[in-house]
Amino acid sequence: MSKKEEAPLPDKYDNFNEWYNEILQKAELIDLRYGVKGFIVYRPNSMTIIRQIYRLFENELDKCGHSPCLFPVVIPLEFFEKEAQHIKGFLEEVFWVTKAGEHELNKPLVLRPTSETAMYPLYSLWIRSYRDLPLKLYQSNAVYRYETKATKPLLRGREFLWIEAHCAHRTKEDAERQVLEDMEIMSRVLHDILGIPFLLLERPPWDRFAGANRTYAFDVLFPDNSILQIATTHILGENFSKAFEIMFKDEDGKLKYVQQTCFGIGISRILATLISVHGDEYGMILPFDIAPFQVVIVPILFKESGGPVMDKCKEIRKRLCERGYRVILDDSDDRPGAKFYKWELLGVPVRVEVGPRDLEKGVVTLFRRDTRERLIVEDGMLEGKIEELRSDILRVLRRRGEARLKKCLKEVKNRSELLEVARKREGIIRMAFCGREECADEIKAETGGFEVRGIKVGEEAGELGVCAACGRSATQIVYVAKPY
Amino acid sequence: MSKKEEAPLPDKYDNFNEWYNEILQKAELIDLRYGVKGFIVYRPNSMTIIRQIYRLFENELDKCGHSPCLFPVVIPLEFFEKEAQHIKGFLEEVFWVTKAGEHELNKPLVLRPTSETAMYPLYSLWIRSYRDLPLKLYQSNAVYRYETKATKPLLRGREFLWIEAHCAHRTKEDAERQVLEDMEIMSRVLHDILGIPFLLLERPPWDRFAGANRTYAFDVLFPDNSILQIATTHILGENFSKAFEIMFKDEDGKLKYVQQTCFGIGISRILATLISVHGDEYGMILPFDIAPFQVVIVPILFKESGGPVMDKCKEIRKRLCERGYRVILDDSDDRPGAKFYKWELLGVPVRVEVGPRDLEKGVVTLFRRDTRERLIVEDGMLEGKIEELRSDILRVLRRRGEARLKKCLKEVKNRSELLEVARKREGIIRMAFCGREECADEIKAETGGFEVRGIKVGEEAGELGVCAACGRSATQIVYVAKPY
Repeated sequence: MSKKEEAPLPDKYDNFNEWYNEILQKAELIDLRYGVKGFIVYRPNSMTIIRQIYRLFENELDKCGHSPCLFPVVIPLEFFEKEAQHIKGFLEEVFWVTKAGEHELNKPLVLRPTSETAMYPLYSLWIRSYRDLPLKLYQSNAVYRYETKATKPLLRGREFLWIEAHCAHRTKEDAERQVLEDMEIMSRVLHDILGIPFLLLERPPWDRFAGANRTYAFDVLFPDNSILQIATTHILGENFSKAFEIMFKDEDGKLKYVQQTCFGIGISRILATLISVHGDEYGMILPFDIAPFQVVIVPILFKESGGPVMDKCKEIRKRLCERGYRVILDDSDDRPGAKFYKWELLGVPVRVEVGPRDLEKGVVTLFRRDTRERLIVEDGMLEGKIEELRSDILRVLRRRGEARLKKCLKEVKNRSELLEVARKREGIIRMAFCGREECADEIKAETGGFEVRGIKVGEEAGELGVCAACGRSATQIVYVAKPY
Repeated sequence: MSKKEEAPLPDKYDNFNEWYNEILQKAELIDLRYGVKGFIVYRPNSMTIIRQIYRLFENELDKCGHSPCLFPVVIPLEFFEKEAQHIKGFLEEVFWVTKAGEHELNKPLVLRPTSETAMYPLYSLWIRSYRDLPLKLYQSNAVYRYETKATKPLLRGREFLWIEAHCAHRTKEDAERQVLEDMEIMSRVLHDILGIPFLLLERPPWDRFAGANRTYAFDVLFPDNSILQIATTHILGENFSKAFEIMFKDEDGKLKYVQQTCFGIGISRILATLISVHGDEYGMILPFDIAPFQVVIVPILFKESGGPVMDKCKEIRKRLCERGYRVILDDSDDRPGAKFYKWELLGVPVRVEVGPRDLEKGVVTLFRRDTRERLIVEDGMLEGKIEELRSDILRVLRRRGEARLKKCLKEVKNRSELLEVARKREGIIRMAFCGREECADEIKAETGGFEVRGIKVGEEAGELGVCAACGRSATQIVYVAKPY
């Protein structure tokens, strides 16, 4: 790699698009040159992170009593058509399999855009009694939507990776509790492991999932002040259980419809968020617990000192692997500078450098990716210091993200303030709102795409006054932002 | 569950079909009632095993320098058509996506039946120099084939789960070594972890993968004496690299085509094999290292002893979890007999029973699923004994499988012996063979489906004499069997 290629990326706040496209390419995360619009290739540098994110959420779901399953990628038309709102919401954006070999299929098949209509016919066979409830199943898969909006790699594509969890409950209260549990899983992972600040919003009625009674969503702020929905959980009530006849005999002997919820976790979108929220002009910065490699060891070699330095590096690798860290020793022929550049680009949170002088003094040099600081540490203190960095890096990343979210949250009181903030793309707007879809449509039209994203879960509205957009009396505080 | 439902399964050697269908249903492994022929639903009891099998092979591949990636599920027609033999082999059995929303697509898309033609156009972009080689990528995914043969759940379906690894090498020798490495991975996992005996065969020319120069396959013997191919590795030579223009500049400055190999591991078929080869009339028997739960703890409760017994069970769970075992404590309200039945059906290799009498004596009762023996063990010896069972259960399973494979391997010298063994479906035939496809076709026609599966890798042929089927002079020793 030449020095020129090692030039830093643009400032992500100045020019997010350019920064994003460059990092995807330079870090060899994905390839956009596959011949079909909206379909991308995940290269090893992204797939190893994707795998970590999947395992993280699968563990959390398992701990909460969910079980994994897998349903077919194709959905028969008669299943897909059963719930009226759902088919209305998805019909325009499904891919159809119509032919096999030389033959036209008698009945065309839908490539799953989401799996409610694949799963629920089986739920109606499996669920008989209240003893079969709750049924909590999830699948880690890809879904397919013929997006007509502009696609953007990892953010919006025609094939995306997610986890979808589908629950059937005995009572409405159980369903409410499930949605709370989903929110807790998501909040915990985002806060405690990924260090990503978020807004948890209840979507307005016109922006609910097709077939849901209530929709809660996790929105995150991107460097260009757009926001991205990375997960949703929905109260489906009896909409699907009536359409698919999912009934159970309750303890009182009566036949009842199950109360359903579903929960989608956008895995490719979470990868995009990790890249974009934490990254800087040197590349990605991965939180320690999610990083495919948590520590990279780089020997600083001179001819005469090669042997002992390399021995020390191997010893350190062994010690750190025994502690359960994911470690790579870069013993390639590249010069140290090229190695530093590469592993910083890939976001490895901690680097250990070992040179002949370190060896003499019985120390090692640590480099933390978040602040790009170097620390000299006594050899015996290495493990303790890495454990300290593990939580400290997370804290730094989280604090940065939170500070930015706070800075970009703008209160507006009236229409001219609203239009001004929108015009400058300053961030997320918080305002009193009348609750009317027509008003939301007007805001969107006049601001060039700012949407009423909903009410913050748990927020007390306080004194409302009038709708900042239309001046009618307000019924709620909402967050308004420009989504991807 | 009533006592009646706890009746044992049929003998798998007497009536494999019935045994297989019953175990799939009773153990709630898969559901066949999804509305599309050849597409099945993986329920949690199979999906947790599938996940273990995937992780096992992914670890092995990672250790051998492969990296994970993910390519789209759809393949554009112009990619798919590039290699002549390949498209000839697959055209009849692909699903076509022709429509999106209301629109006919300009160019129809193929649902991937395998990913050579998806991946190799990108390989030609990524590979420039000998320094980029070897490129070793794999993906864990599902593939789609419009099978016209009778489908059988997990064995032959229209959607199946596998891992496909695709390598590009600098030299023919590197490619040969890769195929050896693939064979070693497969042999090691089957022998050391899954305890499944196999035949590793080089397929005859007419039975190679479409586009391959050589095909090596792992065949396993099923209880009805049919055999199943569970993995293959192929020398592709330059067939695809020429079609897709995958070239590199070698150290000598010359542009050369890469030498390719690919390796497919049938994950759903390996699940079917684990179920069928090891199972008995009480259900599955899972080798310890692959079992989602390795140990189940069952409290034997009487009213007066409930507290202390349950405390002991929890203490044991904690101790075993700390040792890294995957443990479940069955504290449901079922009676112990129902619990025994359930966990035996699911193949949990070791059961720990704790009752008030055990508690008094300071012992626990261990039950091993493979031999269905009970052992009384001093409480302090529990961990050591489980570690002993871990390898001993594997040894027992492997020995059983090997004994059966040996018993079912029949040498035949002439046509009448060949027809006799085939008529009785006694197993796998070993015989001298002339090497002609016409002769293989005749064997197949006359025996009702026995196929020449190939030459055993590493086997010395010795003195050959004449072809057992046609009497012409023999050129090789082959294995002949009836595949699914």
